[in-house]
Amino acid sequence: MDIATVIGLIGGLGLIVTTIFLGGNVVGFVDIPSAVVVFGGTVATAFIMFPLNVIIGTVKVIMKTVFFKSTDPHQIIRKIIELADTARRESLVALEKVSVEDPFMKKGVMLVADGTEESLVRAVLETEIKFMKQRHLQGQGVLKGMGTMAPAFGMIGTLIGLVNMLQNLSDPASIGPAMAVALLTTFYGAVLANVVFLPMATKLEGRSAEDQLYMEIMLEGVLSIQRGDHPSIVKEKLMAFLSPAMRESSS
Amino acid sequence: MDIATVIGLIGGLGLIVTTIFLGGNVVGFVDIPSAVVVFGGTVATAFIMFPLNVIIGTVKVIMKTVFFKSTDPHQIIRKIIELADTARRESLVALEKVSVEDPFMKKGVMLVADGTEESLVRAVLETEIKFMKQRHLQGQGVLKGMGTMAPAFGMIGTLIGLVNMLQNLSDPASIGPAMAVALLTTFYGAVLANVVFLPMATKLEGRSAEDQLYMEIMLEGVLSIQRGDHPSIVKEKLMAFLSPAMRESSS
Amino acid sequence: MDIATVIGLIGGLGLIVTTIFLGGNVVGFVDIPSAVVVFGGTVATAFIMFPLNVIIGTVKVIMKTVFFKSTDPHQIIRKIIELADTARRESLVALEKVSVEDPFMKKGVMLVADGTEESLVRAVLETEIKFMKQRHLQGQGVLKGMGTMAPAFGMIGTLIGLVNMLQNLSDPASIGPAMAVALLTTFYGAVLANVVFLPMATKLEGRSAEDQLYMEIMLEGVLSIQRGDHPSIVKEKLMAFLSPAMRESSS
Amino acid sequence: MDIATVIGLIGGLGLIVTTIFLGGNVVGFVDIPSAVVVFGGTVATAFIMFPLNVIIGTVKVIMKTVFFKSTDPHQIIRKIIELADTARRESLVALEKVSVEDPFMKKGVMLVADGTEESLVRAVLETEIKFMKQRHLQGQGVLKGMGTMAPAFGMIGTLIGLVNMLQNLSDPASIGPAMAVALLTTFYGAVLANVVFLPMATKLEGRSAEDQLYMEIMLEGVLSIQRGDHPSIVKEKLMAFLSPAMRESSS
Amino acid sequence: MDIATVIGLIGGLGLIVTTIFLGGNVVGFVDIPSAVVVFGGTVATAFIMFPLNVIIGTVKVIMKTVFFKSTDPHQIIRKIIELADTARRESLVALEKVSVEDPFMKKGVMLVADGTEESLVRAVLETEIKFMKQRHLQGQGVLKGMGTMAPAFGMIGTLIGLVNMLQNLSDPASIGPAMAVALLTTFYGAVLANVVFLPMATKLEGRSAEDQLYMEIMLEGVLSIQRGDHPSIVKEKLMAFLSPAMRESSS
Repeated sequence: MDIATVIGLIGGLGLIVTTIFLGGNVVGFVDIPSAVVVFGGTVATAFIMFPLNVIIGTVKVIMKTVFFKSTDPHQIIRKIIELADTARRESLVALEKVSVEDPFMKKGVMLVADGTEESLVRAVLETEIKFMKQRHLQGQGVLKGMGTMAPAFGMIGTLIGLVNMLQNLSDPASIGPAMAVALLTTFYGAVLANVVFLPMATKLEGRSAEDQLYMEIMLEGVLSIQRGDHPSIVKEKLMAFLSPAMRESSS
Repeated sequence: MDIATVIGLIGGLGLIVTTIFLGGNVVGFVDIPSAVVVFGGTVATAFIMFPLNVIIGTVKVIMKTVFFKSTDPHQIIRKIIELADTARRESLVALEKVSVEDPFMKKGVMLVADGTEESLVRAVLETEIKFMKQRHLQGQGVLKGMGTMAPAFGMIGTLIGLVNMLQNLSDPASIGPAMAVALLTTFYGAVLANVVFLPMATKLEGRSAEDQLYMEIMLEGVLSIQRGDHPSIVKEKLMAFLSPAMRESSS
Repeated sequence: MDIATVIGLIGGLGLIVTTIFLGGNVVGFVDIPSAVVVFGGTVATAFIMFPLNVIIGTVKVIMKTVFFKSTDPHQIIRKIIELADTARRESLVALEKVSVEDPFMKKGVMLVADGTEESLVRAVLETEIKFMKQRHLQGQGVLKGMGTMAPAFGMIGTLIGLVNMLQNLSDPASIGPAMAVALLTTFYGAVLANVVFLPMATKLEGRSAEDQLYMEIMLEGVLSIQRGDHPSIVKEKLMAFLSPAMRESSS
Repeated sequence: MDIATVIGLIGGLGLIVTTIFLGGNVVGFVDIPSAVVVFGGTVATAFIMFPLNVIIGTVKVIMKTVFFKSTDPHQIIRKIIELADTARRESLVALEKVSVEDPFMKKGVMLVADGTEESLVRAVLETEIKFMKQRHLQGQGVLKGMGTMAPAFGMIGTLIGLVNMLQNLSDPASIGPAMAVALLTTFYGAVLANVVFLPMATKLEGRSAEDQLYMEIMLEGVLSIQRGDHPSIVKEKLMAFLSPAMRESSS
Repeated sequence: MDIATVIGLIGGLGLIVTTIFLGGNVVGFVDIPSAVVVFGGTVATAFIMFPLNVIIGTVKVIMKTVFFKSTDPHQIIRKIIELADTARRESLVALEKVSVEDPFMKKGVMLVADGTEESLVRAVLETEIKFMKQRHLQGQGVLKGMGTMAPAFGMIGTLIGLVNMLQNLSDPASIGPAMAVALLTTFYGAVLANVVFLPMATKLEGRSAEDQLYMEIMLEGVLSIQRGDHPSIVKEKLMAFLSPAMRESSS
């Protein structure tokens, strides 16, 4: 699980709630119709902006981002070296017996064990990487789109509240509370966009780059095994993909 | 028909109308001159921004986006394999007799059946794809341009209302309603831009990418048939264009 | 003349004036000093932003955009086929006698008639296209720059008005009208930017792409003639530049 | 000297001062602390944003932009033809005796006269062009950065003024003037950014493109001389760099 | 240490504090809960936006930017010439004995002394440069992200304050101070973003380009040494990397 995201979400929302508590009037910040128009409007425009399957896919992508099992690149490299060793000592066909957890790496190893030619292995795995990137890009697009629409619906809600209030100025005592309620949609929109949608989109962007790096390591590793490289050369090749800090942490 | 767009439009506008209803004063949100200046001004600037034929083309493009018959890529691939089969068993000329619904695929098949040389088939079909993309890009440009202009005319309308109101402060009771009316144009502009123009532009962007993918599958398929590839190889080539999720859904 | 631009300008400004009329107080929207500071300030900053000759060139470019004689690509192609025919039946030198209206095409034809070598003809005509694009880009730059500056000077004018008003609050009756006048510069800036400068820049962008397409058709046509291509091949080559819709309208 | 910049600066600031005069209360627009916090804050953040030497270099670049001796490209070409003539009639070594004003052209001529090989002459002069562009880009960066920071400090100053005013509402008569002073920093920031920093950055951008064009003409000319091209060919080559309008003005 | 950054930070914040002092009410600008929600919220969203290790890495990168020992490129070049001299007079292996301070240069020299082949030396050092750039880009990303979030949380805090105030309008005397406090979060957010986060991101951008230039000089120098180039040629090659101003300052 990605602890930073959870800490950030709890911390950010917690600070906002605490600030409201300190102001003493928590009930005044809850208005169901305001919440419905902002959140509902944001979701409704998401339906106009994106096809159904992309929106559904985004939910999955977000889940993966939050409940994310951080991958250790050294473990990936160690696994690939183990595979290279098996291939050297026994044969490419023997790779089938080694248990591989990562589905992407497994696919590559199976292709190699089946004797698929190199150009096809590369093509199949690169298509997989391309579509992973595309899915993540679509997820970012949905989150950024909702991050733009939430404040827009916040403003639309506030305008509705203001127009209503301005047409009923007869009772001065009601002006303040009416305007307070009108401002709530702007508040909801700002929180939704800046604490949830936009930061999640940024996290997804970073995660996508990381996933891609690991998949490229696996691709290079699998092709290196197929070419029959010595395990020590496989290792040297794959370590070049890691940043100096990552390399040091492995020694 | 693209149900998501319709659901989104009805949902978004429905939520806004409901919120107004809850405020109790629906009549206060209807002001014909305000609506005319915002919508009319947006359309007028669209005429300054784009040539007539581009604006007319955009209406067609939007229609296609809403009343969109979602294409199933597996059906495209199945059709192409059927054609490949016919070409193998009979001849390229026999392709003329197979009924092809999609006009783009039909054009490609006719060219192949006529014995056109490969480079020309590719050039003709790629020009077709290029112009489809350009038409969609122009459509997006028009929608984005109107999405920028609607809030601008909303602001212009509100400024007119404010100046009028400020010059007639003698009757305090009229200030509130006058300001309410002044804000209506901003409200109309925000709704037009954020519920209609900008989300439609985003949907068009995604649709364009999808259309292009399908046209590229057809282009590759038609050329593969012309080269006399075996139907099973044609299938393998075309499946590589699909995302893993799409591929699974076909088995 | 580009009717859409004229319709848009008259429509947009007409709607604004009508809205003011409906508010009943037309005189209140005319304030010469406000108009001078917004329009004058916008022009003054244009002088800081761009060299004199670029600003003067922009006026010409705008004129061309408004008083634009729409070119029919089929007429261009027909003319080129006529020239190709002449070159075939008589000789390249005979091209000199054919009257060519378009100055760009004329230049190309003259070069070919003079026996200039192909690479030089291409270089001369491509330089011409490059500089046409650059002139249009500069024109767009000036219009976009003024479209940014008009609202900025609108805001500066409003700030001056507000500061003046706030320092003289002794007479409450004058507050409203003073603030109304202060808002006028913002109103002028918004109208100038959104009805004139920014939409004109967008139109120029589209027109530039169109001009370039036509010049590329002429370039390809002239070179095709020089190479001695058969008129029917020249036609086939040039038709590939047109969108399917344009092609159909010619048959 | 670049007259347009000077006219623009005087015109823009003059219009603003005149507008203030017409409002009758010039003294009310002068507030030293407000001016100090906006201008000082903008300069201070420039120090955080850029290294000292870049900021100092920007002052030089701006000076050059204002006190700019406009270069006539025809004069450059005429000088190069003169040099080509000398090289033809006498020898490359004789170029040393021809007096060349422009330091960039002089450097190139000296290298050629010294018998430096072509690839090195090109490398040295292109490095010079690259660094000229980089200096100009840095200058633009500094001006744009200050153009972003001036309104930010304007807003910060206004917030300080508003908070101060709101905490001392006991004397209603002081509210107006206090708010007027608070708005002054926003006014100063808007004027600094929109009349000085941002337009100067745009001018610098155009000037950089022009300088680069002239340096490329000189580079091409010097290399053409070294290759021993006939003066008439040198001229033809260099004229291709000029826009049609520029070429006509020379005949 | 980077004096400009320190001067800028002290100057910018000092000017703001002084302006507050001149307004007479320093205590009114200190509100711990406001400061906590703005700064805490900005940090919390940074946790959502970026993985933990990237945030920690950013702190290191910022430290390096502030406590930055400016590198003198002439010293780098002098060191490389010294190394080239040693390699010429003695041997590549002798380079091991020369003490090299810079860790990047040291790594390159060690590789060369070990007899590593050129392509590998280049690959290893270029990977190092790539990851340095990536670390700096991530640092900029974090700073820009926080520079976007600080004003957002400033607005959220102000909205909370306004809603609270509007719901308690019974005591008119408390309206002013309550609104003053509400504005403080906007003030804090504007200062944090415009004096700290955004300018630091710009400085980092420039520093990254500088670091990269120096690392490229070292890379080119090390490879030149390995190829056995004469020290005077090594110098000539490396001087081409410096701007004319830098070159002059060395003579």
